[in-house]
Amino acid sequence: MNTPRLVTTAAELRAATTELLNKAAAGNPSRVPTLALVPTMGALHEGHASLMGAARADNDVVTASVFVNPLQFDDPADLERYPRTLDADLELLGRAGVDLVFAPSEEEMYPGGAPLVRVSAGAMGTRWEGAVRPGHFDGVLTVVAKLFHLAAPAVPARFRAYFGQKDAQQVALIRRMVADLSFNVEVVGVPIVRAADGLAESSRNRFLDAGQRQAALVLSRALQLLKDRAAAGEPLDLPAAVELVSAQPGVELDYFEVVDPQTLEPLPGDAGQPLAGPALALLAARVGPVRLIDNALLP
Amino acid sequence: MNTPRLVTTAAELRAATTELLNKAAAGNPSRVPTLALVPTMGALHEGHASLMGAARADNDVVTASVFVNPLQFDDPADLERYPRTLDADLELLGRAGVDLVFAPSEEEMYPGGAPLVRVSAGAMGTRWEGAVRPGHFDGVLTVVAKLFHLAAPAVPARFRAYFGQKDAQQVALIRRMVADLSFNVEVVGVPIVRAADGLAESSRNRFLDAGQRQAALVLSRALQLLKDRAAAGEPLDLPAAVELVSAQPGVELDYFEVVDPQTLEPLPGDAGQPLAGPALALLAARVGPVRLIDNALLP
Repeated sequence: MNTPRLVTTAAELRAATTELLNKAAAGNPSRVPTLALVPTMGALHEGHASLMGAARADNDVVTASVFVNPLQFDDPADLERYPRTLDADLELLGRAGVDLVFAPSEEEMYPGGAPLVRVSAGAMGTRWEGAVRPGHFDGVLTVVAKLFHLAAPAVPARFRAYFGQKDAQQVALIRRMVADLSFNVEVVGVPIVRAADGLAESSRNRFLDAGQRQAALVLSRALQLLKDRAAAGEPLDLPAAVELVSAQPGVELDYFEVVDPQTLEPLPGDAGQPLAGPALALLAARVGPVRLIDNALLP
Repeated sequence: MNTPRLVTTAAELRAATTELLNKAAAGNPSRVPTLALVPTMGALHEGHASLMGAARADNDVVTASVFVNPLQFDDPADLERYPRTLDADLELLGRAGVDLVFAPSEEEMYPGGAPLVRVSAGAMGTRWEGAVRPGHFDGVLTVVAKLFHLAAPAVPARFRAYFGQKDAQQVALIRRMVADLSFNVEVVGVPIVRAADGLAESSRNRFLDAGQRQAALVLSRALQLLKDRAAAGEPLDLPAAVELVSAQPGVELDYFEVVDPQTLEPLPGDAGQPLAGPALALLAARVGPVRLIDNALLP
């Protein structure tokens, strides 16, 4: 098992990144090395391991960041009880072959206190998950912008950042930020990891009892229905998929929409026609004690 | 006279910057080369020439950008009539020894139309000049963030950006953005250029007739009063300086405050005491057909 190097300051991160990239470039002078950043808030699980695996497979140097970002919590109690498990995280990151772990303190990230200038997600950040967590996506984009700057290569290298497609709105917003603000980074979305029964992996799944978990499976089934129809070139018939979820006892649907994958604007109903282009089916539902989200890229 | 290289796309800018930095590094392998960016909206005058001179004096490679940024205009008519004088600008930039001019089209800068994700100036952007131009500073910070990303070195180099201290709120906000979002750039504020009579240089001064110009001199006189008192270690007595301006016929004062240079929050009155630390005196006034701004760093 590889032991990743742990750094806690921006200066150490810069120096270590440069050293690793120079080593990679020396090992293969015929091409520009690649650097991957995988931002996390720690409390790592199999979903994160899949992100690390994707980054490791395709890049010379892999940096993971572990920082519980206070800006993206609208509820201070939620921030307080967010699990901090750095030792276990480092073990998982080591097994995943990560080279460098950046785990800054809050003081290192926000030395002047809460930032006055921030990135604003705009209207894309106020709907769907943003509707139940005001300011959440502004906080996410602000810290991701900082991490992009702090982790960026200072020597010639291609820079990529990896995010889980599970948080579809987050990935869409980060892609939009990169385009709108011309960041020098390529955003890679990593497919959702599903358990054998189809449920999307989430640290919240552990709070479901057996009956609730069984009920929750309707979410991935409904999305699979849409995927099958899109793949077959049939009309999606979203209302039927919504009805499937709504009819499931123990599942309280919050939203279930088919949206433009870039703008997250709802697409018009299918009017009996197959999909004309790429689409994203997005849903959120309350099941027992937790709120679950899931999504599917269509077709 | 040097003729700067004109580029209009992000890809050309990146390639030309790399080429010039590599040439600078080859010429002096013992140190990391420096790259300066001077963002402008064109219609260049002596104030801009002083920015270019400061950048030229201290850096190996100097890039100027010329882009009339629609995002920072709250009034479409104002955007429409903003002067576009690229040929004359290129001549001035050539005389100033600028290496590279980036003059992108609107389509190149905003290929997806108006950006959805933007930089938000927050409360620092809604007071002083922001109070009369809603959204102006969000537009400024958004385009400056883009330009920092587009013009940044892709090979080892120190990156600096030059802004005129005349627009004190703009410089303070850009410094704050760089700190809050951890940009890899050093912001350099270039002192205000004043005419022999003391009036701060501005393209708007040409709209003043002789009497109006004479009246406008009270602004720099009032600031000089504060500077003299700060330099002598005396209490500022801002009310007396305000009274001096208010008593001047033909000058309609909008604001005149002594603020924290970093947050732009008003400092408490001097209560008969000399200044305890760095401060910024900021003012805006209407004189004849134009609105003038001026400021002084204290002491």
